[in-house]
Amino acid sequence: MERINYIDGGVCAAKGFRASGVHCGIRKNRTKRDLALIVSDRKAAAAAVYTQNLVKGAPLLVTKNHIADGFAQAVICNSGNANTCNANGIEIAEQMSDLVAMHTGIDAADVVVASTGVIGQPLEIEPIASGMPALTAGLAYDNSCDAAEAIMTTDTIAKSVSVEFELNGVLCRMGGIAKGSGMIHPNMATMLVFVTTDTAIAPCMLQKALSEDIKTSFNMVSIDGDTSTNDMVTVLANGMAGNDEITSEGQAFDVFCAALHAVTAKLCRLIAGDGEGATKLLTCKVTGGKTPEAAKISAKSVICSSLLKAAMFGADANWGRVLCALGYSGADLDVNKVDVSFASAKGEIPVCRNGAGIEFSEEKAKEILLEKEIDILVGLNDGEFCAEAWGCDLTYDYVKINGDYRT
Amino acid sequence: MERINYIDGGVCAAKGFRASGVHCGIRKNRTKRDLALIVSDRKAAAAAVYTQNLVKGAPLLVTKNHIADGFAQAVICNSGNANTCNANGIEIAEQMSDLVAMHTGIDAADVVVASTGVIGQPLEIEPIASGMPALTAGLAYDNSCDAAEAIMTTDTIAKSVSVEFELNGVLCRMGGIAKGSGMIHPNMATMLVFVTTDTAIAPCMLQKALSEDIKTSFNMVSIDGDTSTNDMVTVLANGMAGNDEITSEGQAFDVFCAALHAVTAKLCRLIAGDGEGATKLLTCKVTGGKTPEAAKISAKSVICSSLLKAAMFGADANWGRVLCALGYSGADLDVNKVDVSFASAKGEIPVCRNGAGIEFSEEKAKEILLEKEIDILVGLNDGEFCAEAWGCDLTYDYVKINGDYRT
Repeated sequence: MERINYIDGGVCAAKGFRASGVHCGIRKNRTKRDLALIVSDRKAAAAAVYTQNLVKGAPLLVTKNHIADGFAQAVICNSGNANTCNANGIEIAEQMSDLVAMHTGIDAADVVVASTGVIGQPLEIEPIASGMPALTAGLAYDNSCDAAEAIMTTDTIAKSVSVEFELNGVLCRMGGIAKGSGMIHPNMATMLVFVTTDTAIAPCMLQKALSEDIKTSFNMVSIDGDTSTNDMVTVLANGMAGNDEITSEGQAFDVFCAALHAVTAKLCRLIAGDGEGATKLLTCKVTGGKTPEAAKISAKSVICSSLLKAAMFGADANWGRVLCALGYSGADLDVNKVDVSFASAKGEIPVCRNGAGIEFSEEKAKEILLEKEIDILVGLNDGEFCAEAWGCDLTYDYVKINGDYRT
Repeated sequence: MERINYIDGGVCAAKGFRASGVHCGIRKNRTKRDLALIVSDRKAAAAAVYTQNLVKGAPLLVTKNHIADGFAQAVICNSGNANTCNANGIEIAEQMSDLVAMHTGIDAADVVVASTGVIGQPLEIEPIASGMPALTAGLAYDNSCDAAEAIMTTDTIAKSVSVEFELNGVLCRMGGIAKGSGMIHPNMATMLVFVTTDTAIAPCMLQKALSEDIKTSFNMVSIDGDTSTNDMVTVLANGMAGNDEITSEGQAFDVFCAALHAVTAKLCRLIAGDGEGATKLLTCKVTGGKTPEAAKISAKSVICSSLLKAAMFGADANWGRVLCALGYSGADLDVNKVDVSFASAKGEIPVCRNGAGIEFSEEKAKEILLEKEIDILVGLNDGEFCAEAWGCDLTYDYVKINGDYRT
């Protein structure tokens, strides 16, 4: 039974998880929620991965400490301020945990804390403190959408995915919300993603599943090549589905990992397609890699090329930029064996074979590239390994959004 | 006598070098020169460095072969087509050498060949062949500017630098022209740069000087993070100044290297300031690095950050993005010791001390950042090593230029 079905519910799809999101005043725009809370009815196994940026947001350090024992019960996250590079950042992040404890009765040491927004501006605790009553009053078993909205920064859509799957005949659920858009080039971690599940799974196995998953999910997304200071993915698993706890590798663990990947891979596509200023979701699918690394590095390099991203914005079949990006990627490949095609809902068109251009219809290529979701198909013809990476086009709006983000 | 004076003349500043540039028809725009020729009266010592991209333009392979013996006498370069990823690329590049031989009497094996423009479109030899009479007729000892124009692609200004300096009482000259703008993120080599000098220097010492120089010149420039397939720097030294030939390290070699750096560092600034769509030249000056690598990697990472580049376009003092870029650079540094200031002709403003924000006047910062040349000053306070990197802002026009470059 490896059937995984997409369902509604976001982080509330799993049993025993409530969520809420309010505007507390960190942001000036009163119509934009800026504070989110997710609470499990029971203490849950917890796992997380963090940005590899040496500059780390204060909330990450506090969270790392809080889930060191493998458990957590709540997540609080604000948008509008990253609480990073601030002298009192740790203190503020701890105060956020204390506020959750005070208003929910959950142990402050079981709170996951996250912040996203501008780096290097002091985060005041007052708006958060005054927003807590409304935030906790809003907690409901069907309110994932408010939390998903509250963690958005320049995102244009709230990002939520949930699935159900069976473990030895027991129905389990898993759901996640994500904040993406800018400063997205995860390195062993990612943007902000909160996943919940009612699966019973030991903390060490949960961490193992997450650490493995990100290699082919979030670590294969790039919006702009900038690895954020506040990237974090956390998973809370409260066991309320009632399955036999997963404590080792085996069939149940494999199904759990497949379900996790169903959630994370879809969140990746949502994040990439909603990159800052993006008009297109780009997926680079590499086949025929000599090694898994050759395939992964190739896919990521193509997705990261500013020149290719701009060409895709212009629906220009400039495949030379794909070859150029493969050539400087550092991957072990033979450029004389490379085939390239572009594909979308309008069809597929080969543009390069054995590293050299072939004749193709510019009109047909244009028709394919004018679609919203473009696949860049790269055949390395050098082995059996595959990889997929996600990104978006580079547009005027990316420049606009980032030319004056703070003010 | 280490005085180095900037003079006029470009690649014709050195004795015995003639240059020319014409429109031969590779480009549709008849007002844009697209074919350049530089000829030395005598066979010259030659050195070159090439792109590290695995995909290499055919002209580079031919050039490498031609200067394997340490000597060359002419450079031919077309713009509008990179002659890269073409099945018959090598053949065409050899034909270009043969045409130079036929029209100038120089041995075809002494010709440096270069091409720049679109990748993966066959380059026809016909327009080049028919342009050769006008090209050779135009050769003159004061015509560097036509050659500099002919190698331009999306460049908005021709890039030319020349200097004079003394070696043991003998006046020597050196000059260079460059093509920059896009696909600029050199890795052990660079965009197209042709340097000429009348200094007498042995080929091995010339190569040594060049290979060392690029580490702190062209390899510290980035426009868009894309390492081109056709990057190349060549130096021709014909010895006509009459100095004692430099055959080993020592004072004369040091002066020669200083002169070379005076030419290359200025070309770097010209290339960065004229990056595709750029409105500002950005220079990141790092001091206090624990190691030379820590300083260099830090400077380059800041200059390469799309987010910082967009912020500079918007004259937004978003120093958090500087810290973020330092944090993910991979450089060995202590983020809690980092100081950041922004500077320009309007003054200097500290914005971050010991890794945390400090209060500053937003109006003053805006005034400083509205200038055309911005310095981003990073103090790592962790050692004694310094580095400098050059780049430009990320603008609407970069997207526009690259959204539809081919058509």
